[in-house]
Amino acid sequence: MKKVYFLVLVMIFAAAVTGCKKSEQAPAAAEQAAVVDELKPTEDALILAARENFEPIPLNVEEGYKQLKNNTPTPEKLELGKMLYFEPRISKSQLISCNTCHNLSFGGDDYQQTSIGHGWQRGPRNAPTVLNSVYNTAQFWDGRAGDLKEQAKGPLQASVEMAATPAYVVEVLKSIPAYVELFKTAFPGVEDPVTFDNVASAIEVFEATLLTPNSKFDKFLRGDSTALNETEKAGLQAFIDKGCTSCHAGINLTSDGYYPFGLKETPEEKLLAGDKGRFAISQAEGDEFAFKAPTLRNIEYTAPYFHSGLVWDLREAVAVMSSSQLGIELTDAEIDQIVAFLKATTGEMPKVEYPILPPSTINTPKPTYTID
Amino acid sequence: MKKVYFLVLVMIFAAAVTGCKKSEQAPAAAEQAAVVDELKPTEDALILAARENFEPIPLNVEEGYKQLKNNTPTPEKLELGKMLYFEPRISKSQLISCNTCHNLSFGGDDYQQTSIGHGWQRGPRNAPTVLNSVYNTAQFWDGRAGDLKEQAKGPLQASVEMAATPAYVVEVLKSIPAYVELFKTAFPGVEDPVTFDNVASAIEVFEATLLTPNSKFDKFLRGDSTALNETEKAGLQAFIDKGCTSCHAGINLTSDGYYPFGLKETPEEKLLAGDKGRFAISQAEGDEFAFKAPTLRNIEYTAPYFHSGLVWDLREAVAVMSSSQLGIELTDAEIDQIVAFLKATTGEMPKVEYPILPPSTINTPKPTYTID
Repeated sequence: MKKVYFLVLVMIFAAAVTGCKKSEQAPAAAEQAAVVDELKPTEDALILAARENFEPIPLNVEEGYKQLKNNTPTPEKLELGKMLYFEPRISKSQLISCNTCHNLSFGGDDYQQTSIGHGWQRGPRNAPTVLNSVYNTAQFWDGRAGDLKEQAKGPLQASVEMAATPAYVVEVLKSIPAYVELFKTAFPGVEDPVTFDNVASAIEVFEATLLTPNSKFDKFLRGDSTALNETEKAGLQAFIDKGCTSCHAGINLTSDGYYPFGLKETPEEKLLAGDKGRFAISQAEGDEFAFKAPTLRNIEYTAPYFHSGLVWDLREAVAVMSSSQLGIELTDAEIDQIVAFLKATTGEMPKVEYPILPPSTINTPKPTYTID
Repeated sequence: MKKVYFLVLVMIFAAAVTGCKKSEQAPAAAEQAAVVDELKPTEDALILAARENFEPIPLNVEEGYKQLKNNTPTPEKLELGKMLYFEPRISKSQLISCNTCHNLSFGGDDYQQTSIGHGWQRGPRNAPTVLNSVYNTAQFWDGRAGDLKEQAKGPLQASVEMAATPAYVVEVLKSIPAYVELFKTAFPGVEDPVTFDNVASAIEVFEATLLTPNSKFDKFLRGDSTALNETEKAGLQAFIDKGCTSCHAGINLTSDGYYPFGLKETPEEKLLAGDKGRFAISQAEGDEFAFKAPTLRNIEYTAPYFHSGLVWDLREAVAVMSSSQLGIELTDAEIDQIVAFLKATTGEMPKVEYPILPPSTINTPKPTYTID
């Protein structure tokens, strides 16, 4: 009897210890996902309709890794990629980093009509958000990059953005011994790991983790019918019924297709003169003035809107889309509801510890400011 | 007997629970400091000589708060101040934040001869580091700001830096409801808390925590005679013996005094033509071409050197200082030793979670790029 008594106490004791051991660290992301990351059975007609059109962002941000092609993610690549994402010395002026235009304080975007880059030059189109972008089947408004690895090489070299060259980027990084070591660890067994390709691969691994799970909309999708209020639900219903989902569906609220702006009527004053969009890449007639349907997630953070960045008001953007792409006029109430729904797609922003970058050396190239 | 046995087990059980409760959170900074933050008794002559000239940076970064005047630090001010420090929307272009030129990835500085600001304009002098700057008795190279609160207002309004006006900064912040709430919490009981003064006060509270404790040099000062290697010790000895400490002593390796550049011989090619330094503020004859002795902590991160930013090589900077200010020529070996010592002042950089900033609204002023 006493023995049992004793055993029970020992068990409680053990439980207490192991119990708190667990509580010292957050549950592994995978576990966490396993617990909550499922679509609960439901009778809710709107949830069921939503599930036919959309998927939630995974709670475990490492799920983003599954989208990577020819790039094996490792913690070392992730850490290096994070540093390079915030590294201004790989731009010609040593002032501009990926984060300058894809600011992680700002929904992975800037609040600029088009971005300001090297020499205070303006970029040609509005900067898309980096958040959840690993789910895009192609990158840039015209889809000219097949993945984030390829995308990352663009702004680094664009004369109006970071204005660097691959050789310059490699020279800067090789001049900083700590970076050479970080590349060796991130790309083990490679003779000369500090390459422009590896810079892009590391950045892609970091960007693949920049997901925004757990929005009110995603909680609703998972089966919590109270996660959206009545206005947001009405907006979701309208979004489906009006046909917005024909271009904005799936996990990232985009079909990843290219569509003329506009399909029904062209809002001339919202276009950038001479920008033929996808046509410049495909030369296909149907692609004239066609642009990739962007993600609508976290849209409250990504103003101004469209490839032109010419619309700052989300209500106006919704109205323009409905008339130009669907050929319908929404009532003010419908616009308010759809805007409320779109704002409910704002998820949890990535938590990032601001990286400490290794010091330059006397061999590090100096910044230059001239425009070639 | 059994009763005692039982009691003991209960006590172990309780201990296990409370024990692990504690371990779930890091010890309070104050406790932590109490443990290690003392000068251990020592016979080491060099440590004793160093203690006559220098003090270590406190391990508890909240010790920086003790330097604040007319600004009561609170966690709410700290959080708001951190957000404002990284907030580009309070610049005219909405692209430039405090962190642009005082980059916390880069030792609280940029790697620019002089900073690039609004409209790609160059600033007049090299940007000083924000790290440990709460220990400076005056701010800017000419000491024209008495504290960090006053300092913060300078770059915000400078036409070549952030190019904003107090009214514009307030308009931007008032257009974002989340900021209005944050100001209410940080400045409770104030009728209209969103003011330019409060912006500066919040930023100052954040900056007061940007300390870099635990450098090898500080460990040595506290009594660990093994914390510096022989070269670093020889450098420290030379730094004291040659008289560098007459301008670079105290907690921040500066006397906070103003000295002509140079005292013994003027290195014309290291000066900026027409910059009379402190004289512009004091009109005192002795202040012609005089500049504030800067902190030397983390100096490996703060190249290029001097108010002019015209010297990128730390070895050259040490040689220039010894000839221009002390009128002596150091041997190459002495320069190497002093450089090794100076690099041993690099402390632990502040760990900062990159802030998520609240979204703009349709009432938020738009960025503008023109130079007035």
